[in-house]
Amino acid sequence: MGRIFKERTSVDEALRLFLENISTLSKIEEVSLEACVGRVLAETVISERNVPHYRRAAMDGYAVRASDTLGASSANPVMLQLSDRIEEGSSIWVHTGAAVPEGADAVVMVEDTVTAGNLVEIRVQVYPNRNVGQVGEDIKVGDLVFEEGHLLRPCDAAVLASLGVDRVKVFKKPVVAVIPTGDELVSRQRGRDVPPSGMVLETNGLMSALYVKKWGGIPRCLDIVPDNPDSIKKAIEANLDVDMILLSGGTSVGKRDYGPKTVAALGELLVHGIGVSPGKPAALGVVNNVPVVCLPGYPVSGLVALYFFVRPGIRKLAAIPEIPEPILKRRLAAKVSSKIGYVNFIRVVFEGDKVRPLTGAGDGVLSSVAKADGYILVPENIEGYDKGKEVDVFLIE
Amino acid sequence: MGRIFKERTSVDEALRLFLENISTLSKIEEVSLEACVGRVLAETVISERNVPHYRRAAMDGYAVRASDTLGASSANPVMLQLSDRIEEGSSIWVHTGAAVPEGADAVVMVEDTVTAGNLVEIRVQVYPNRNVGQVGEDIKVGDLVFEEGHLLRPCDAAVLASLGVDRVKVFKKPVVAVIPTGDELVSRQRGRDVPPSGMVLETNGLMSALYVKKWGGIPRCLDIVPDNPDSIKKAIEANLDVDMILLSGGTSVGKRDYGPKTVAALGELLVHGIGVSPGKPAALGVVNNVPVVCLPGYPVSGLVALYFFVRPGIRKLAAIPEIPEPILKRRLAAKVSSKIGYVNFIRVVFEGDKVRPLTGAGDGVLSSVAKADGYILVPENIEGYDKGKEVDVFLIE
Repeated sequence: MGRIFKERTSVDEALRLFLENISTLSKIEEVSLEACVGRVLAETVISERNVPHYRRAAMDGYAVRASDTLGASSANPVMLQLSDRIEEGSSIWVHTGAAVPEGADAVVMVEDTVTAGNLVEIRVQVYPNRNVGQVGEDIKVGDLVFEEGHLLRPCDAAVLASLGVDRVKVFKKPVVAVIPTGDELVSRQRGRDVPPSGMVLETNGLMSALYVKKWGGIPRCLDIVPDNPDSIKKAIEANLDVDMILLSGGTSVGKRDYGPKTVAALGELLVHGIGVSPGKPAALGVVNNVPVVCLPGYPVSGLVALYFFVRPGIRKLAAIPEIPEPILKRRLAAKVSSKIGYVNFIRVVFEGDKVRPLTGAGDGVLSSVAKADGYILVPENIEGYDKGKEVDVFLIE
Repeated sequence: MGRIFKERTSVDEALRLFLENISTLSKIEEVSLEACVGRVLAETVISERNVPHYRRAAMDGYAVRASDTLGASSANPVMLQLSDRIEEGSSIWVHTGAAVPEGADAVVMVEDTVTAGNLVEIRVQVYPNRNVGQVGEDIKVGDLVFEEGHLLRPCDAAVLASLGVDRVKVFKKPVVAVIPTGDELVSRQRGRDVPPSGMVLETNGLMSALYVKKWGGIPRCLDIVPDNPDSIKKAIEANLDVDMILLSGGTSVGKRDYGPKTVAALGELLVHGIGVSPGKPAALGVVNNVPVVCLPGYPVSGLVALYFFVRPGIRKLAAIPEIPEPILKRRLAAKVSSKIGYVNFIRVVFEGDKVRPLTGAGDGVLSSVAKADGYILVPENIEGYDKGKEVDVFLIE
């Protein structure tokens, strides 16, 4: 079992090979602003409007001709006439955001004025354009507002709306087929009684589908496929219209492990055996230009392969821009041992301002992940970390 | 205009007062595991099953009686008979995950064996229970699996599925009414032509609704309400069946700013004028036990109030557990100036491994947020940060 895996590929090299075989989808669809959050722009947005589209008062106060306020101060105020049009010696009340009337070129803040009947006492001298937002001051016709590839957030939707945009072109979400394999699996759809000895409820497919959705893909959940090469071959061939295939289970080199072999027979097996623990039996390949990830059946190993390969794969397919990954810096509440030659995925729980590694839970124990708040990664060439060491913690989402 | 706000409340105090007036919703609904991600458990999950529910082989290999392997080594192997039942001197092939046959108490890894016809050469001595997962080893009947209040992730859904759970009780999402106010607003629904001078398309309501949805609430988007106390009063009263009300616009102390006054008339105004820049004119109140946030109409100020008050408010309503907020540590590419007495919300863009503050963009310029990748906060008592200073960067989501 261990022999083939002795020639394991490093995580970085495996990911590089995998991403090299993934092309960003160019399929485009149009969505309303109400549905655009989290989607990636497939067009460059150039403004067809000026914002503001009129000269805008920046303060509550009086619109005036700046020249009329020359020399005004509290000690020596200027008196202007309240009016409904601006000419020499007149002023008009405006509130913040209102249009500055024609003829006026400045707004005096209400705090710097006193009104008495039909007169306004101006207690400050203002220069032209004071408290006046010019047409196109924020955005001009022809300005680049968003580049293609921008990941849309609620505040971006508001900017687009302010420009009169109602629908935007975005990249389609990648469709990801999730194929659970294994003679031992019982579908949850067939009832949830305790299965016979040696049989288990299928749950990795559910987990994979929910992560695919969370990471921006559309899962296509398929029936359980038994452990035989023909059935696996047929299942892959029947789903080559998708953008990525996840084959769960049967990735090791045991008697019933047909996943990677079948991928190799149908297309190209890029990597089988990866320097990550848990997750070593994962395999990566391509069939008819469709990237395929063989996820180990052990749930924690499967989860690691989802995080390490499926997530970046979906992001590349979907053109989701790289943003720095937020991390938490925490000190270890206990020592961590790590397997040399492997990137070690260590589950941790928060404990006050520290994190405690969850030890003693095997790769098959998914409940250990459910207990974990996050994980830390120990690089290949490190034997572990001492208690008190500051580490980067990633949240398990 | 500034006078009332001189008695501003600090952000921390304002948030404390606001949260004190918010009770976590106790409304519960049941969802399928397929729809449970991001929801908060409203029940404690106790396992009704053992996992595994049978003695499980942890390796591909041969199930044996450990006592039969006594003294076995490569130099001195023990020969066992391949059989279909276990008795002294016999063994049965098992793959990983299979049931260990009755009578066997250990599994010898296939790597430590050689088969020849009907015989298996055992080259290692194994102790009882070696490579055998015991019934309930991962989870026992009666074990606490998840506590009430747990935020469900895809891996948690898989754990629940493995226990035969199909639906879970979760807290209902809070319903948040979004009421845009302002005589200057034009609904996007009425066409998206450039509005007349002095009029603008309503966009803060859209932004607020999309953030409410992102943060776990259900937005109820309402029509634009004109700037008059009666209309605002009616709009609030017509929506007191929701869990939170957002009143956008009309929060300052100008002639047309009726939001906070109306909240005060209908219920209790907790805070008006907050030590955050931008965002100072925000107000917080309660009407008939429904928390109300008056969001400033200036879009950046409105965004700040959404982040500082609406987000934690929704999280409390929805019982979303506090998790440490992931942040990025970055050095400043330029000096930041800050207003003393206010928490300053400074928009920043990534620039290589640094962040650059976006300066010169007023509170009314939402496009400056669209350009920003994140923000930093400068506390009340700090005048600013020098270039090169390491700061905590929060992503704008």
